[in-house]
Amino acid sequence: MSELRGACLIGQSGGPTSVINSSAYGMIKTALETRCITRVLAARHGIKGVLDDHIVDMGKEDPAELELFLNTPSSLIGSCRYKLKSADEDDTDYRRILEIFKKYDVRYFFYNGGNDSMDTCSKISKYMQRSCWECRVIGVPKTIDNDLVCTDHCPGFGSAAKYIATSVAEVIKDAEVYDKETIVVIETMGRHAGWLAAASSLASVSGRGPALVYLPEVTFDLETFFRDVDAYRREHLHTVIVASEGIHDRDGRFISEYGSDLAKTVDSFGHHQLGGLAATLAQSLHDHTGAKVRGIEFSLLQRCAAHCASKTDMEEAFLAGKAAVEAAAAGATDKMVAFARPESGEYRCIMRLIDLTDVANAEKTVPREWINEAGNGMLQPYFDYALPLIQGTPEDKTENGMPRYPKLRWIPA
Amino acid sequence: MSELRGACLIGQSGGPTSVINSSAYGMIKTALETRCITRVLAARHGIKGVLDDHIVDMGKEDPAELELFLNTPSSLIGSCRYKLKSADEDDTDYRRILEIFKKYDVRYFFYNGGNDSMDTCSKISKYMQRSCWECRVIGVPKTIDNDLVCTDHCPGFGSAAKYIATSVAEVIKDAEVYDKETIVVIETMGRHAGWLAAASSLASVSGRGPALVYLPEVTFDLETFFRDVDAYRREHLHTVIVASEGIHDRDGRFISEYGSDLAKTVDSFGHHQLGGLAATLAQSLHDHTGAKVRGIEFSLLQRCAAHCASKTDMEEAFLAGKAAVEAAAAGATDKMVAFARPESGEYRCIMRLIDLTDVANAEKTVPREWINEAGNGMLQPYFDYALPLIQGTPEDKTENGMPRYPKLRWIPA
Repeated sequence: MSELRGACLIGQSGGPTSVINSSAYGMIKTALETRCITRVLAARHGIKGVLDDHIVDMGKEDPAELELFLNTPSSLIGSCRYKLKSADEDDTDYRRILEIFKKYDVRYFFYNGGNDSMDTCSKISKYMQRSCWECRVIGVPKTIDNDLVCTDHCPGFGSAAKYIATSVAEVIKDAEVYDKETIVVIETMGRHAGWLAAASSLASVSGRGPALVYLPEVTFDLETFFRDVDAYRREHLHTVIVASEGIHDRDGRFISEYGSDLAKTVDSFGHHQLGGLAATLAQSLHDHTGAKVRGIEFSLLQRCAAHCASKTDMEEAFLAGKAAVEAAAAGATDKMVAFARPESGEYRCIMRLIDLTDVANAEKTVPREWINEAGNGMLQPYFDYALPLIQGTPEDKTENGMPRYPKLRWIPA
Repeated sequence: MSELRGACLIGQSGGPTSVINSSAYGMIKTALETRCITRVLAARHGIKGVLDDHIVDMGKEDPAELELFLNTPSSLIGSCRYKLKSADEDDTDYRRILEIFKKYDVRYFFYNGGNDSMDTCSKISKYMQRSCWECRVIGVPKTIDNDLVCTDHCPGFGSAAKYIATSVAEVIKDAEVYDKETIVVIETMGRHAGWLAAASSLASVSGRGPALVYLPEVTFDLETFFRDVDAYRREHLHTVIVASEGIHDRDGRFISEYGSDLAKTVDSFGHHQLGGLAATLAQSLHDHTGAKVRGIEFSLLQRCAAHCASKTDMEEAFLAGKAAVEAAAAGATDKMVAFARPESGEYRCIMRLIDLTDVANAEKTVPREWINEAGNGMLQPYFDYALPLIQGTPEDKTENGMPRYPKLRWIPA
């Protein structure tokens, strides 16, 4: 493989995670140390930054500040949700991208995102090839939802899982303080895949786990739910339930949408919590049991709580970024970095490369056989899968009691 | 002062905090080391455990497990919200308490709670004196609300403040990722005092702080709020607002109650978030701006997130428990442990004792002069006050990636 000299361009895309910046740092640091890469550039707000010529030179930042990327949640370089049209349909954006790549001599393009972003990578790569502009394109996965195919897991999931499991363990402790009935319903993200709701079951490592866990992989039925809850309440005073935002009934209707019906029947009483899934389930459980039921939605916290990140996740995210740059420098293109683990024995994260086209526009859900038969709890295989991913506490990088985030100069390229 | 030999009885009361168990450990450990204290007992679920003769022997627990109290949120021994009647009105409960105190030879009673609990302490102490049962009674403060009088601050506040400031800093990072308008409204606890909402301003130590902060100490007006938000939005793309659940209008009506009115006007559209303050403000801001507005309620998380505790708070909570036992052993009674700090120079927490009757049934709010004139942000004196309280990260006590909580045997006394 001939050496390809030129600039690299890095972008972040899609919803942020606690460790997406670790991957960015893995790319930036490795690229700065790679001889054939002449400049390390970044596009603010992903592909939109390319289209807007909003390109910055990461090589001009203070290395000590760049290292703080490791401990900083969210997408520091800026993200976007911009879907490229097919080039056959409209090649305006592609022509602009080519123009920018030529302007900065971009020969390496690294894009960090979910499956939409891998689709973007793939389209750009094809257009560059067709235009005879040699540019190696590698995708780096990220998503708290853990729903990318062809990879054992995704950077970002472990930290979200750790935050959810830890917070649920804490809420269970809180729910147990009074010797009277307490019911709490907690909502996690996950529209189509229940990996995050499932992570709440890891709370049992600290003691008692959640009473019931509901994933979108199993059809949800309100009457069955009431029966599940009543059965648990007969044995326990404190009931903490976790559900994925995406749980739906047999007609495919999201349970969170039931809230608007409830609103019509109870609005004259005021004070009712309606809206999201937690609030909807809390309201319906209150109506069913007469007990006080509290709804909690983890909301954005679960994807940005870097103060509770998994060290394993943070390190793997870094290594994914590093592997992308090393693979491209060695000649790879049209690939995404993916993770594998040994089929047996101790957990270890193995980096590999898969074709971008294999991962774009597909979705991985939790295997049904990892969920109990009743569809309201997790089985051992899920624990075996998820526990290694939440291990380790990152080094404390607080300053004056608060997280120390990087101070960046954002020098235009 | 003659030496008083006998058992001590420890109870936890009111809403839990991240460090209330540090105080319990301070009491238990010190009592176990105190010669005149013959047994270290605890009442499950506070005064209710006394009435129910649900008394356990903490001296029979494994010391290594007891040490894990330091890292465990919520009230491990169990809490209650039980208000004793005046003894003149009905002395049934008091006679029962005396009976239990005699049964176990309780000569030291330590009660850890907020101002209601100090009232309980005071009443019990007076009844014991009247009944000629020598028993020294000391209160240990706790509350995330930080609203106890006669003390510089309360154990529990520093950790809640740290969790809120850290999480708000992270949500601000998350809100900034897209180059399009984002508005987030965050609700903290604090019905009458705004100490916790104010803590969100500490996020500015990590970078940008919240756009606007609203406390119950200042009358809230919806039109002024819209003007505040619009002014900020003219200069910024991302607006993160924090408000205390207790903000109210000039008629004293909680803004969170506005939600039921809004429900009537929008229920036919479904999907609207109604209920708590965050949801109510998010809905009204959406109606005002047309922008997507996300509401986040920290809910129970802010009082149980021990994974983000302040080391300073944890240590002070321990020392408060220790000071209570030492003071009682030295002869003090009818006191609450309180904190002071030097009037100038470096922060230091000074333990002192105040009369129980001085603290019961009073409430300390945030000084108006620590809030800016517009009533939507905090001034330097608040930072000077609060920053020392969130310092330090406790030792990592996770096991298999999750918090390690004590395994207790709860041996009946």
